[in-house]
Amino acid sequence: MSETRALACYVVEGRWAGMPGDVQHEARRAILNYVGCALGGARDEAVDLALRALAPFSGPPTAGVLGREERLDPLHASLMNGISSHVYDYDDTTPKNYSHPTSPVASALFAYASANPVNGRDFMEAFVLGFEAESRVANAVYPAHYDVGWHMTGTAGVFGAATAIGKLLRLDEQGMIWAIGLAATQAAGLREMFGSMAKAFHPGRSAQNGYVAALMAQAGFTAGVRGIEGPRGFAAVTAARFDLTKVTDGLGLDFDLRANTYKPFPCGIVNHPTIDGCIQLHEAHHLAPDRIAAVRLRVAPLVKDLCNQTGITKGLQGKFSVYHGAAVGLVRGRAGIREYTDEAVNDPAVKRVRQLTEAVGDATLTEDQAHITVHTTDGHRVEMFVTESLGNLKRPLTDAQLEDKFREQAVVNVATDAVDALIEACWRIDTLDDVGALVELSAQGSTV
Amino acid sequence: MSETRALACYVVEGRWAGMPGDVQHEARRAILNYVGCALGGARDEAVDLALRALAPFSGPPTAGVLGREERLDPLHASLMNGISSHVYDYDDTTPKNYSHPTSPVASALFAYASANPVNGRDFMEAFVLGFEAESRVANAVYPAHYDVGWHMTGTAGVFGAATAIGKLLRLDEQGMIWAIGLAATQAAGLREMFGSMAKAFHPGRSAQNGYVAALMAQAGFTAGVRGIEGPRGFAAVTAARFDLTKVTDGLGLDFDLRANTYKPFPCGIVNHPTIDGCIQLHEAHHLAPDRIAAVRLRVAPLVKDLCNQTGITKGLQGKFSVYHGAAVGLVRGRAGIREYTDEAVNDPAVKRVRQLTEAVGDATLTEDQAHITVHTTDGHRVEMFVTESLGNLKRPLTDAQLEDKFREQAVVNVATDAVDALIEACWRIDTLDDVGALVELSAQGSTV
Repeated sequence: MSETRALACYVVEGRWAGMPGDVQHEARRAILNYVGCALGGARDEAVDLALRALAPFSGPPTAGVLGREERLDPLHASLMNGISSHVYDYDDTTPKNYSHPTSPVASALFAYASANPVNGRDFMEAFVLGFEAESRVANAVYPAHYDVGWHMTGTAGVFGAATAIGKLLRLDEQGMIWAIGLAATQAAGLREMFGSMAKAFHPGRSAQNGYVAALMAQAGFTAGVRGIEGPRGFAAVTAARFDLTKVTDGLGLDFDLRANTYKPFPCGIVNHPTIDGCIQLHEAHHLAPDRIAAVRLRVAPLVKDLCNQTGITKGLQGKFSVYHGAAVGLVRGRAGIREYTDEAVNDPAVKRVRQLTEAVGDATLTEDQAHITVHTTDGHRVEMFVTESLGNLKRPLTDAQLEDKFREQAVVNVATDAVDALIEACWRIDTLDDVGALVELSAQGSTV
Repeated sequence: MSETRALACYVVEGRWAGMPGDVQHEARRAILNYVGCALGGARDEAVDLALRALAPFSGPPTAGVLGREERLDPLHASLMNGISSHVYDYDDTTPKNYSHPTSPVASALFAYASANPVNGRDFMEAFVLGFEAESRVANAVYPAHYDVGWHMTGTAGVFGAATAIGKLLRLDEQGMIWAIGLAATQAAGLREMFGSMAKAFHPGRSAQNGYVAALMAQAGFTAGVRGIEGPRGFAAVTAARFDLTKVTDGLGLDFDLRANTYKPFPCGIVNHPTIDGCIQLHEAHHLAPDRIAAVRLRVAPLVKDLCNQTGITKGLQGKFSVYHGAAVGLVRGRAGIREYTDEAVNDPAVKRVRQLTEAVGDATLTEDQAHITVHTTDGHRVEMFVTESLGNLKRPLTDAQLEDKFREQAVVNVATDAVDALIEACWRIDTLDDVGALVELSAQGSTV
């Protein structure tokens, strides 16, 4: 059986009830993390501008957008959900292929569920199946596909959205094959866009395009039936090397959701061990900022390649400065989205410690490790060696930490009582009668 | 100056009045050919299905669709125009890169002009500039990009639509650079879809996506500024070899419109010399079909690779049968869209001659050549050697032949008096006060 057909059958036949309990719980964690990110980014300028450009072209406004009052057709709502949930680069990551897997799938599903009656079980069934389809396609072409310059969140994401929406539309095997083909032929997204708003456009557009693929397949619009594995299909065209067995091996038995990770800090993942260690030093030693005389970091060499920015004045620059990460960890004992604002970057205490911080690359350290030494003004020093960074697969965020992360983001845009209700709804999402009510709650609770 | 910036400047600064007269006339020919194709395909099942799937999601219906009564938002109208104009593979081709260049650009422009007041001069200015931008991007990555499996009508088309709509939106240089970046990061379309409806989806989606790119850039949504030439940009990511000088060399002086060609027959271009020769034999000898005893073709070997179908029963199969092409040329003296219906394929006289036809590959012939020998039942034979096929750059369709082609397609869906008015409007399109009136006329004239 071809890989496209095998994946289509898997999605058509998959059932929530048949999924292992740990996978179901990880799916809830992924949704909680996703909704928090979407609420945190819902009022970012990128979302405002996308709405300004495209809301005049929206169809009947049957769908809500997470964290906003505007209503749009569900295709445009998918796009906006995708932009908001990725715009701070704070959503999930799978280290198997370095895509951000939940946004394309969940952005389309929440838009669909807002416009159509969908119960929680069907919603989560479609989410897990779409997530797995997307991640397997990504695994098959990683790393050649990523290395040449594709942003996998865009290119693999459209497969996830197409199959997830196709599942809710109850496509049969032929329809699902066409949906996968129509996804394959829309797969796009260049890493050249990193550093601009267009990066967050990728999961949004892949959510919207996958939704369109499923709708067209449902209507009977035909596509090539070997969209993934054909000689001119997605794998051969977009990757110099690929392994199609990764699409099918263990299908229905293994779940990539188990390899999903959640960022504790809204910045480049290579900064995380440094920040993690600095927060631990803050908590252990209660160092007053003005007692800090010097900070010495030993980090993986890649950190200095990617996050070496100094002399910074903007919040966005802070995401690419390991010095800023160290400073907010030591001074504030935290590194949430409020530590990556222009205000935080220009906070005199943070700025002073940042300027006292130096880093050296050390090839004996992994990218999950960092060694931190803080010298105090009275001649003492304290040290911390982080061997596994918080948030990686060996030290995953706990459920409580995911709730804290959700709260920290959501309170920017949503009233506190709605935040608590949303967290509670995410934890029991598979039991909801109507997932659309969750989107309504996020909009009604909007504080803006 | 970077290639992206150079191309943006060219589009921002280009003026219809400054373009050579022969280029202006070729632009009118391209538009005439395009509108005819869009009218011919307007009621194809692929358009019906796309409308069924997506019309419920249309925004305010401010735009008409060429050859149909439905009104949609201009983004969805762009998509439908793109599908209808390419669905019979009868639109234009540039032999420089084998894309079908007009559909993505004109499909977006007609949708825009239907929804907004646009005079003919501005319309044609945007058309030529978008066409050139698209074709130059395609030239830069051809042939490696095409050979690996990209459908250039989709991948390059989005650049054409984005720059053309960006021109009408009067984007400044920065805005045009973002529009190009947002186009680059949406470039998609796989040759694996050939033989399905998804092939015609490509120009439609590239028209729609380019339109979106321009709207978002206008709103200030940022993108990478090196969408074409960046290390993770369109050229490097999608082509193993590329030549960026083809984007910029002769910009403003050379025009790829001069290398545009128009198909005389709605089938694979390698069949054209055979059909051309058989029509000439029909006209010269008035052979009654039942006098034909055998037909012997000598053709370029590629013809037998691509168009060797025998035992056919469907119109679509006829497009991939050089035997069917020979038969309709000899029996009917023509090969229009009515010769590629199920009826024509099963016409007893056509079927008989088709079954009497044999072909041999001959590596001494070019793909523009064919040698035809017809043996008659009374022992005579007639021969024809076609050295340059009708429709290629050395034997372009005349203006009158383009009008005949338009008429033959348009009468399927549009009343005769409207057909004449539409032809007349296309020839003087650059003098129209409101190009949207042409779209209205095509819908009002609809005979369905």
